[in-house]
Amino acid sequence: MERTLIKDAKEKVGQEIKIQGRVLNLRALSNVKFLVIQDYSGVVQAVFEKEIDAKIGDAVEISGEVREDKRAKGGVEISGQDIKIVSASIEDLPIDLAKPVLNLQLNTLLDQRPLALRHPKVQAIFKLYDLLLDSYGKAMRVENFTEIKTPKILEAASEGGANFFKLQYFDKNAFLAQSPQFYKQIMVGVFERVFEIGSVFRAEPSFTTRHVSEYIGLDAEMGFIDNFQDVAKMLNKVLVSMFEEINERGEEYFKLHEVELPKVPDEIPFVKLAEIRKIIKEKYDYEIPETTDIDPEGERLAGRFAREEYGSDFLFITHYPWSDRPFYTMPCSENPEETCGFDLIYKGMEIATGSQRIHLYKDLIENMKKKNIKSAGMEYYLDIFKFGLPSHGGWGMGSERIIQQMLGLKSVKEAILFPRDVKRLSP
Amino acid sequence: MERTLIKDAKEKVGQEIKIQGRVLNLRALSNVKFLVIQDYSGVVQAVFEKEIDAKIGDAVEISGEVREDKRAKGGVEISGQDIKIVSASIEDLPIDLAKPVLNLQLNTLLDQRPLALRHPKVQAIFKLYDLLLDSYGKAMRVENFTEIKTPKILEAASEGGANFFKLQYFDKNAFLAQSPQFYKQIMVGVFERVFEIGSVFRAEPSFTTRHVSEYIGLDAEMGFIDNFQDVAKMLNKVLVSMFEEINERGEEYFKLHEVELPKVPDEIPFVKLAEIRKIIKEKYDYEIPETTDIDPEGERLAGRFAREEYGSDFLFITHYPWSDRPFYTMPCSENPEETCGFDLIYKGMEIATGSQRIHLYKDLIENMKKKNIKSAGMEYYLDIFKFGLPSHGGWGMGSERIIQQMLGLKSVKEAILFPRDVKRLSP
Repeated sequence: MERTLIKDAKEKVGQEIKIQGRVLNLRALSNVKFLVIQDYSGVVQAVFEKEIDAKIGDAVEISGEVREDKRAKGGVEISGQDIKIVSASIEDLPIDLAKPVLNLQLNTLLDQRPLALRHPKVQAIFKLYDLLLDSYGKAMRVENFTEIKTPKILEAASEGGANFFKLQYFDKNAFLAQSPQFYKQIMVGVFERVFEIGSVFRAEPSFTTRHVSEYIGLDAEMGFIDNFQDVAKMLNKVLVSMFEEINERGEEYFKLHEVELPKVPDEIPFVKLAEIRKIIKEKYDYEIPETTDIDPEGERLAGRFAREEYGSDFLFITHYPWSDRPFYTMPCSENPEETCGFDLIYKGMEIATGSQRIHLYKDLIENMKKKNIKSAGMEYYLDIFKFGLPSHGGWGMGSERIIQQMLGLKSVKEAILFPRDVKRLSP
Repeated sequence: MERTLIKDAKEKVGQEIKIQGRVLNLRALSNVKFLVIQDYSGVVQAVFEKEIDAKIGDAVEISGEVREDKRAKGGVEISGQDIKIVSASIEDLPIDLAKPVLNLQLNTLLDQRPLALRHPKVQAIFKLYDLLLDSYGKAMRVENFTEIKTPKILEAASEGGANFFKLQYFDKNAFLAQSPQFYKQIMVGVFERVFEIGSVFRAEPSFTTRHVSEYIGLDAEMGFIDNFQDVAKMLNKVLVSMFEEINERGEEYFKLHEVELPKVPDEIPFVKLAEIRKIIKEKYDYEIPETTDIDPEGERLAGRFAREEYGSDFLFITHYPWSDRPFYTMPCSENPEETCGFDLIYKGMEIATGSQRIHLYKDLIENMKKKNIKSAGMEYYLDIFKFGLPSHGGWGMGSERIIQQMLGLKSVKEAILFPRDVKRLSP
């Protein structure tokens, strides 16, 4: 008999079918066994009125008759005749996948990752992540951005120097890319609008719920902009389109996590950093430390302000100090101590950083001098500014943080299949 | 005046518009200047009947009237009134972008990459690459594969040990992923069908036109297969769908490279490795060296055979020797010295490798022993085989080699924006 996909079972009421899948859950009464079977197309319950040998986790093949069952999600269940164990669990599962919520410590959850990923609530996170990747590409293509892939092994740790992983590259030293920054700027001279979905590596010795040493960046860069607001508005537009698609196709996953469908306003509010610092002091009596432009608690309260003041989960904080931003960031003409750029806050956490970039060779060289940055290893990048790079800007966005905030996950590591941090290199 | 995109100029015949873009080409007669301007939407010619200052490479803003011009590609040209140099080339271009063909040595082409990429024929390569990425994702999603992103920093060089880049990971050593193999197999237990588009790192000390040390792999893995042919057929189906889309949207780029639209047969022929070795000896009088399963010349002749015998640019070569294939490859039940897998040859070059994998724990451990492979650092991978992983298989495909073969490029490095090899770490 041919395999029937679980999603197609509802078309075959009264017929005998064969399904294949994994035993997601199992309840045994004295004389009836209820098995929840999952394949790549969906989930269905199979009922056996005899002794069977299956355990949770087994890969099985089941034949039986499709019966209508109004209470079931897909409207049908399988009256099981035969079950064949294609691949059995040969040990007891170290975690209980049958519970509606796993309720594990983060470390246990991540140590047991290969199995924990099979839990429906954990699966839901990565089904949404799949939608996120798909919808980002679609939204960017609608705006005529060309997708690029740039190298992750670099000759020089050129973006400032800190937080780079070093590697042995044949007989040389090399570094892992901290961002596709230089390459996407070069590509503005080629395609004007480019985007990349790619690995980003950060040797950050941080033990937080928002940092990892490897993540997937959603990058973009666009030419002929008038100001950084053009970039922010494009990002806004792209997010609106992404969230629309994710909500449309991902509703069941949000339900499973008991969170509302996420919303992006058509016009995300803007506020200057200096202003939000004042507001946070006045409204919430919290003083952002002088040693930082804004700290996590400040971001959280900025998020609260956006919600209370504008009913928005999103907020652009703009005009970060020149001293804190990378050398390619455009200083503001009104006040060169501030930069023409933004962080995007989503539910109180930064998920993206963007700016207008310096596009004239002499300005760039001058700014590097002021910041005391050496050009060694960056010649290929600096040279392209001699050949008519238009005004441009772009953003870098952390894909996993979006999912973290959408679902209210405690750590970004829950939104990464196999996360990497200072202590974690496996699984 | 608002910016008009070049693609929309044809809707505005007789009107004055403003365009922005880069000077792609420039011809100066005594009293007329012809400028070819490119923006992210297209290309148009602007004609000035006065002295102007623009040079090739400049980013410019042009205002002028749209005139019908039947000879022009978009059906219109701009009668230029004003030109503003947004960002000038401040040095002479080191390569002549105005020539219809660049005709540079590969090394020069790659040294000058940031500029050379602006040449229309080079652009065309990466426009096709953009289509390739898009169409792979689409084709995989149609078949219900879930997109995943797996870590590129690994604790152990576990797939055999050779060709791994080593890096310093905080206070530990780590390795760059040579493939997402272990992770995608784990994910079969989660989503049954998964795919990944991601960076692959190979420390191959090879000086060839087909090897680089960093590339983008198009990977997939699927559960509940009956045999490796199920995997090969899925890959075949995906390629048919990809090539259809690429041909439909990329026709102009193939024209520019003066190559025919690529074709994938609905049923790519299969031939066993032992057989093709014999055929190549008999038909083309070439003996594949005993030290290799098949060498590049053998692949080239296998491609020739596929074309002559089946009229196909593609050929699956199957049943590679067990001794040459990784430990997770399923040995054939008829002859365990051969493996249940394939290489896919496209126009005489391997572009993908796939197989059925061993899915039972005891078989995997046994096969590792036979191959003398230690389990250290792979426990997280091996353990998942204790929990009911169904029969499965998948492929790894080199994205850039597909483009190389489609366009008949001499080196795969021409199909990578900023390639990496033993000697090249920059740009």
